[in-house]
Amino acid sequence: MRDLNENNIIEAVLEQVRDTPDPRLKQIMASLVRHLHGFVRDVEPTFEEWNRAIVFLTRTGQMCSDTRQEFILLSDTLGVSMLVDALNHRMPEGATPTTVLGPFYVANAPEMALGADISGGLAGEPLYVEGSVASAAGRDRLAGAIVDIWHSDSEGYYDVQRPDLDHSALRGRFLTDADGRFRFWSIMPSSYPVPNDGPVGRMLAATGRHPYRPAHVHFMISADGHETLVTHVFVAGDPYLDSDAVFGVKDALIREYAPEPPGMAPDGKTMREPWRRLSYDFALKPRSPARAAR
Amino acid sequence: MRDLNENNIIEAVLEQVRDTPDPRLKQIMASLVRHLHGFVRDVEPTFEEWNRAIVFLTRTGQMCSDTRQEFILLSDTLGVSMLVDALNHRMPEGATPTTVLGPFYVANAPEMALGADISGGLAGEPLYVEGSVASAAGRDRLAGAIVDIWHSDSEGYYDVQRPDLDHSALRGRFLTDADGRFRFWSIMPSSYPVPNDGPVGRMLAATGRHPYRPAHVHFMISADGHETLVTHVFVAGDPYLDSDAVFGVKDALIREYAPEPPGMAPDGKTMREPWRRLSYDFALKPRSPARAAR
Repeated sequence: MRDLNENNIIEAVLEQVRDTPDPRLKQIMASLVRHLHGFVRDVEPTFEEWNRAIVFLTRTGQMCSDTRQEFILLSDTLGVSMLVDALNHRMPEGATPTTVLGPFYVANAPEMALGADISGGLAGEPLYVEGSVASAAGRDRLAGAIVDIWHSDSEGYYDVQRPDLDHSALRGRFLTDADGRFRFWSIMPSSYPVPNDGPVGRMLAATGRHPYRPAHVHFMISADGHETLVTHVFVAGDPYLDSDAVFGVKDALIREYAPEPPGMAPDGKTMREPWRRLSYDFALKPRSPARAAR
Repeated sequence: MRDLNENNIIEAVLEQVRDTPDPRLKQIMASLVRHLHGFVRDVEPTFEEWNRAIVFLTRTGQMCSDTRQEFILLSDTLGVSMLVDALNHRMPEGATPTTVLGPFYVANAPEMALGADISGGLAGEPLYVEGSVASAAGRDRLAGAIVDIWHSDSEGYYDVQRPDLDHSALRGRFLTDADGRFRFWSIMPSSYPVPNDGPVGRMLAATGRHPYRPAHVHFMISADGHETLVTHVFVAGDPYLDSDAVFGVKDALIREYAPEPPGMAPDGKTMREPWRRLSYDFALKPRSPARAAR
């Protein structure tokens, strides 16, 4: 392992990871070395370019905090997160497609009664959301499924991004009723830029890309015997549906958030202003027997 | 750009970087996307594995400080730094081979008189270093070349790694004399582990690798009309010459640090204990006309 040059160094590095005890890590390291060296040989970086890459990665790590994950954002904006999602969700016919989790999920949101208002007092156009949860196998409705919701406000901010807010808002957790149905009130979400004041934002700007995601509501739905579904429902007509900065849009996840006139809402509430109505029926992929047995 | 799956997402991401204004950045981004997606498709990471990669990169960035560059260490230990070095130094016949800069270079070391002792009072076996600097074209000796030196102590630490040390040691800067020669006193360097208390150290351990570098003295040599040479001279017989953790060893850079008995040293100094003697004649690559014109 001496006198390594551009032609033989890759074999020397592969030789060094060949004794990795864990077989999966060994496979990952060998593939990483092959693709990383392939990239470097392909672009032949100058020392200055290599140094800029080192600085970029360092700043990306140092931008991370309890409320900010810049490397996930980098993964998202390079299409890696959606690729990992696709590789892990080769979905059966009829199951609702998945999309990225995103950085704004908060575990253990408060459980709320069906029909509750999750707007937390934030201003915006009222939105009534109703839907059902079924099994993609047989279409049986699933009672007692956990439906976790979160979304942005009318200005594109999540509650955790608003230092002025002292309570959680625009997020909630519901259990489907005996018919596998759920419903709640909130306000319309808005399109928004991913956090773009860090290295990833500068990467987007340097590559001529905008940082916007089309408006959507996040859903995480889990039920016994089924894989947990992580997805969004996008607002039809949003200008960013064809250029989502994180590559997450699927046609089957776009719905009309239908404008409704003042009057009586489906739950009997009298609306004095116009409101919107979203309906979505979700279908969960059954867990494979091997995984269900765990 | 909707309904992206494992087969078509790469094209969507490439399409997004196609408007990059800077042509070089455009080339780098396209290659990065191809190789990064190739890696992910090859290993098909689970979400847990993807998350561990995110955590690894984040910790690597957060390990960096004014005195520690964990991403350079990652680049070094994956052979990327030496690959970049090789790609940038396709050396002409007769020029001294290059190797990695490493993390311990300090710019603007004090200039010292030829023959000075750079040991800074640190204990160790005395080492006399002498050599010459010539042009690889024609072998003309180069007077007034700047020879920057730095190396570890007898325990494998650089001065910047010793919080107990309040002055610089084991580093210096010399100008070659009219014959293109230099000489100085120091102490023997030692093999040492690269910093292994961080994410890169855990990566080395998980892949069954040791973190050691064979003992060496660093040289950075610059002279008018020539490319700056960054290299080491390794100590012949070191047990880590064939498994350098950063892949930096070249046969032409290994020399006997010859043991000498007590008595008179080449500069007339009387040595009461055994000492070592290193001689190395460096040859610098002439700058190409295009670059010299800048």
